[in-house]
Amino acid sequence: MALLTFLTDFGLTDYYVAAVKGTVLRLAPGTQIVDISHDVPPGDIATGAFLLGAAVPSFPIGTVHLAVVDPGVGSRRRLLAARTPFGGWVGPDNGLFTPLLADARVHSVERAGLFLPGPGQTFHGRDRFAPIAAWLLRGEPIEELGPEVADPVRLTGDPPRRSSGELRGRVIHVDRYGNLVTDIPAGWLPAEASGLRAEAGGHTATRFVAHYQQIPSGEAALLSGSLGTLELSLNGADLSRAWGVARGQEVSVTWREDRK
Amino acid sequence: MALLTFLTDFGLTDYYVAAVKGTVLRLAPGTQIVDISHDVPPGDIATGAFLLGAAVPSFPIGTVHLAVVDPGVGSRRRLLAARTPFGGWVGPDNGLFTPLLADARVHSVERAGLFLPGPGQTFHGRDRFAPIAAWLLRGEPIEELGPEVADPVRLTGDPPRRSSGELRGRVIHVDRYGNLVTDIPAGWLPAEASGLRAEAGGHTATRFVAHYQQIPSGEAALLSGSLGTLELSLNGADLSRAWGVARGQEVSVTWREDRK
Amino acid sequence: MALLTFLTDFGLTDYYVAAVKGTVLRLAPGTQIVDISHDVPPGDIATGAFLLGAAVPSFPIGTVHLAVVDPGVGSRRRLLAARTPFGGWVGPDNGLFTPLLADARVHSVERAGLFLPGPGQTFHGRDRFAPIAAWLLRGEPIEELGPEVADPVRLTGDPPRRSSGELRGRVIHVDRYGNLVTDIPAGWLPAEASGLRAEAGGHTATRFVAHYQQIPSGEAALLSGSLGTLELSLNGADLSRAWGVARGQEVSVTWREDRK
Repeated sequence: MALLTFLTDFGLTDYYVAAVKGTVLRLAPGTQIVDISHDVPPGDIATGAFLLGAAVPSFPIGTVHLAVVDPGVGSRRRLLAARTPFGGWVGPDNGLFTPLLADARVHSVERAGLFLPGPGQTFHGRDRFAPIAAWLLRGEPIEELGPEVADPVRLTGDPPRRSSGELRGRVIHVDRYGNLVTDIPAGWLPAEASGLRAEAGGHTATRFVAHYQQIPSGEAALLSGSLGTLELSLNGADLSRAWGVARGQEVSVTWREDRK
Repeated sequence: MALLTFLTDFGLTDYYVAAVKGTVLRLAPGTQIVDISHDVPPGDIATGAFLLGAAVPSFPIGTVHLAVVDPGVGSRRRLLAARTPFGGWVGPDNGLFTPLLADARVHSVERAGLFLPGPGQTFHGRDRFAPIAAWLLRGEPIEELGPEVADPVRLTGDPPRRSSGELRGRVIHVDRYGNLVTDIPAGWLPAEASGLRAEAGGHTATRFVAHYQQIPSGEAALLSGSLGTLELSLNGADLSRAWGVARGQEVSVTWREDRK
Repeated sequence: MALLTFLTDFGLTDYYVAAVKGTVLRLAPGTQIVDISHDVPPGDIATGAFLLGAAVPSFPIGTVHLAVVDPGVGSRRRLLAARTPFGGWVGPDNGLFTPLLADARVHSVERAGLFLPGPGQTFHGRDRFAPIAAWLLRGEPIEELGPEVADPVRLTGDPPRRSSGELRGRVIHVDRYGNLVTDIPAGWLPAEASGLRAEAGGHTATRFVAHYQQIPSGEAALLSGSLGTLELSLNGADLSRAWGVARGQEVSVTWREDRK
């Protein structure tokens, strides 16, 4: 059975998510569809990209990933379809697939006969991306969709940095629990780091733990999160709110370089 | 594989949606279920009807559509099941299916042996509508559910109007992005309309665009939306909030009648 | 086709729900997955248990129920898997499955080779519970997961009480509509109870009805709810808000003992 994941900023109060799914099921009957999220803030490509990059590795090889966070819908931005080692993806060319570009063969979809006629130019999720996803789900050749392209839009940003006794990065996600997920690889922290200080927004945590229940009540701590990066957390409370720290803010981690 | 869509005002924090799905899967195993929305405001039949009318045309022929926005649950309002050219639908007789009445053969379901015994009279979604939907999903004859009826409840309202140089209608939906979806067919607007003015709530837009990114920042514009009706939008911001305009408010569109 | 239900406190804005589903589908392809709810308040085991107990009886025999409300993730709390007369369940040993313990054979899962390596110790939903659920969904023997245990954690609480002319219990759930669901069995109320008074939070209802539309506008009433317990409701409005009554508050129901 063909498997499709689906991520958008459409929300769940409208008919938009259902209209896309109905179209996929009309054109590729029997497809199993799994939502990643439809609560991406409107137009927030970076959050969509983060969620895709985090969720996709859990899915079976061969899964097609459809994602539509598309403030440029109807404009001349390209429509992309890709084959990758893990399956494929479909969506707008605006950086949304930045975490899924490694080893991807990306095509600009120009096979206009595939597109539904509308109405309007505002719902390419239903009228263009759903038929493209159905094409891949049916196992049709991606080459027939349009030319391969070498320059899909990529989100850029400062990568995390490490130096002697210091790591610097950013909060790349605040999750439902208020945990601050950073982009700093957890493996960069030495196993024995005395004098640990993790700072964000003028606040400091000085403890490294393995899981949330090891955090003393009311105290913030650093841990190795579910994506392999460092994460700042309170036990049973919302650290983002407590510290007033949001996505994008800088995080630094320092420790004492012990002489051995 | 039988396909069911499901729309309610149950929300996603309760067990109600799951209990209906479980019952359907117990009585019609293997059914694929696709949510339309469960965030219809409690008891808001008009919003439920709008979403059904907008989503259903995207689904494959043969799909059964189950919808439960049912403030009269347990009262003597009828339970309906219908066969239509696109498949069928099941739900309460309160106007919810107004957009799906064309060419529908509608039956009042009186086959009490089909109903689950409760407990209570407050959850017909689980105890009555789910077994009715399962009946249709299994391909059983609709005639055995009860007599055909000619007078299902219909929502009524002023239809949009056109006259020389003026269109009048209403906001029939505010979507997640704050776009104001009207009931005015986009085809009513002449291709060349100079001096265009679209008014709602005392505010005015004077530009017609093909898609959102053509709208200058901070300006509202008119466009042809995804249902084939006119829509008022801001680019990247919430027009409903900016203008203070909600569902139901009047919209007028005027232009200069050019002498040719 | 194997059927899995899924309940968490993960919310729908993160990648967590999708990562668990993807892992299940990777390890048990073709599984049909039905959400119960992912909007359990963070860490609220009692609400998770309530929703499980309410939804599970509607599902087909053989369904596996995966539930993860797990503030102790990564700690030494046990991971449980159970076979029951209705199917089975998988999740943390913290009381979440209290309503599903009857006739359950519960195992502590210690087959470490089944677990995914991480990263981190904060996402057992993906790394441990999903593989355990997939094991059951594939029909593998539960005995090979680990030893049977006799002492799973149980939530405790005062049970509802009945005496001559009085019932006492609690609000165990406030649903989306603001209905106050109690734990008092509806069958405890005599069929003919004159002088009925139901009290909660200093407010009183004096009417017993069969369904919501029988409630006079602006008045609260008692009815037999969809779980077979008494429920307090307003017609078309939110009683929890109107009365300022939340989950956990006491409810008493009294009536006049008529001399016969």
